[in-house]
Amino acid sequence: MTLAYGVLRDGGVCARVDGRVVDMSGLDPLFDAPSLNPFMAAGPEMWRQARDRVNDGAAVVDFEEDRLGMPFEVADYVDFYSSLHHATNLGRMFRPDAEPLLPNWRHLPVGYHGRAGTVVPSGTPVRRPSGQRPGPEFGPSRRLDIELEAGFVIGTPSTMGEPVPVERALDHVFGMVLVNDWSARDIQAWEYQPLGPFLGKSFATSISRWVVPLDELADRRVPGEPQEPPPLPYLAERPWAYDIALTLELNGCEIARSNTRYLYWSIAQQIAHLTVNGASLRTGDLLATGTISGPERDERGSLIELSWNGEDPIELPDGSTRTFLEDGDEVVLRGDPLGEVHGRIEPGV
Amino acid sequence: MTLAYGVLRDGGVCARVDGRVVDMSGLDPLFDAPSLNPFMAAGPEMWRQARDRVNDGAAVVDFEEDRLGMPFEVADYVDFYSSLHHATNLGRMFRPDAEPLLPNWRHLPVGYHGRAGTVVPSGTPVRRPSGQRPGPEFGPSRRLDIELEAGFVIGTPSTMGEPVPVERALDHVFGMVLVNDWSARDIQAWEYQPLGPFLGKSFATSISRWVVPLDELADRRVPGEPQEPPPLPYLAERPWAYDIALTLELNGCEIARSNTRYLYWSIAQQIAHLTVNGASLRTGDLLATGTISGPERDERGSLIELSWNGEDPIELPDGSTRTFLEDGDEVVLRGDPLGEVHGRIEPGV
Repeated sequence: MTLAYGVLRDGGVCARVDGRVVDMSGLDPLFDAPSLNPFMAAGPEMWRQARDRVNDGAAVVDFEEDRLGMPFEVADYVDFYSSLHHATNLGRMFRPDAEPLLPNWRHLPVGYHGRAGTVVPSGTPVRRPSGQRPGPEFGPSRRLDIELEAGFVIGTPSTMGEPVPVERALDHVFGMVLVNDWSARDIQAWEYQPLGPFLGKSFATSISRWVVPLDELADRRVPGEPQEPPPLPYLAERPWAYDIALTLELNGCEIARSNTRYLYWSIAQQIAHLTVNGASLRTGDLLATGTISGPERDERGSLIELSWNGEDPIELPDGSTRTFLEDGDEVVLRGDPLGEVHGRIEPGV
Repeated sequence: MTLAYGVLRDGGVCARVDGRVVDMSGLDPLFDAPSLNPFMAAGPEMWRQARDRVNDGAAVVDFEEDRLGMPFEVADYVDFYSSLHHATNLGRMFRPDAEPLLPNWRHLPVGYHGRAGTVVPSGTPVRRPSGQRPGPEFGPSRRLDIELEAGFVIGTPSTMGEPVPVERALDHVFGMVLVNDWSARDIQAWEYQPLGPFLGKSFATSISRWVVPLDELADRRVPGEPQEPPPLPYLAERPWAYDIALTLELNGCEIARSNTRYLYWSIAQQIAHLTVNGASLRTGDLLATGTISGPERDERGSLIELSWNGEDPIELPDGSTRTFLEDGDEVVLRGDPLGEVHGRIEPGV
């Protein structure tokens, strides 16, 4: 089983290794902390040393996932839009008479800042958000959606004013998580012009409770498709992606599968872009990929794509259909070796 | 002189009171801290008690502003778009054949999340950002701009899932600062569709080093213009604003004046909106107003408005003209009793 780190609910770093969980909090002051942040800030040499010491930790008996808390304190949360198929699907839906991709999409990793304060660990119930729906009229969202994403967590900070070159970007990344960027499509549709998504996304973003160190994913790197047109020099690298199969499960039924290799922009390119204006990275920054969709119908990472904006409901084994999420729905995203992120929809108020 | 709080560069809360500065760090463990956050989190009763104790602090002799550090640790940074004249000016410039205001503007306080990690204290030099300009072509921004704003800092957090009613919103606000939300208009113009501003804003946001407690501004409250159409019930209150005169100075020359009373949406409405979907407030959240422009030509709070998108350069007393900022330019925003926020442009790399 791939090494991963988490934080026990009462504090203290733990590691998942070889099918068991060990408490590392007694091994080093860096691990005797309420979050992974001090360990993540310590940098790559300490991360390598820690790997050699995980077997020295004390076994955690009767381990259940709910013994884990939030793995790290989120500094800034950025959500990219890096899946070509996802961006193309949304373009086809909302601008049917135009080029699906906007002119900037193939030149830069489009992204925006989300709300760091409402990133929650897997299992946290998600209350259906209320807000202004198109009209406007006020009430609970009627188009509550899933976004199947991965995310990268920054360990080593960078200096303000000093862009991080693409070839050095991975030195700053501690590890990877799964992300469900819950989205209220009706609230988002009404609010987002001209400054982007706000309340349609800010009510909750769920992440997996285990963080897999990037070093553990080295053998998952695969060549990527050529990027056309070739990116500007500050984004130039040999195309690559991680090969991590993902599934999206609704009430126990797998409704989509995808793969992180469908991402057009790499995490290295995203970091080079994010910092090219001099913006700094901080320990705990969460950089999510955006919804990851593949080319096939059953490889779409959101309900708005799977139901084609609600026009084509999906059928579940119990005979019911879905365009968007209903109260009580249970959503699970999985991807070995990242683990899972799940959440249940509670009624709005 | 109005009471304000800051943080000494080496740590410790200090207060500006009656024309002098006192070090409060010895008075209470809440004040012996590297930021205002513990004091801000303590809530309104403690804020009131502190006011009665400021004269007990030890005088700081030979006080200069550079003895102050960053006043608080920013949790999430949200920038609103709450000035009717600013939104109208930008609409006229960029959509000359359409209604200047987008359909949502009079129904909700439009806003988005900015980068918390690059909020810096007054006086921090600002390096001209590089990035993709329309084309795309890569290089330093040629349309570097100022945004004259105010900001409100959250003291008392709220609970996730529980909207803050508009009539209780001010209980969460610790105080007010001045904000310069530096903007690279060319980078922003190319990147912002469809997810909003990102690198055009994320390189730096400057705030004043003093935070003025909201209680000190009670006598600045004035009635506001009626809001048409009337806002939805969760935003409904008697219209009001703060009457704080603002000036924008470039290289020692006042190029614009404005006033926070020109804001259409109040901070109470912004908080009610931000939390109506269940999003929580955290201590240190910074809620900025967006550029504050008035109805007159010399009341525009950004260069893009003052120079009308570069078509109508402004003249400075030394005979030079400006459309956007040049290297070496020194910008100062002032507003009694908030103080000032200044910054100098350094050449890009």
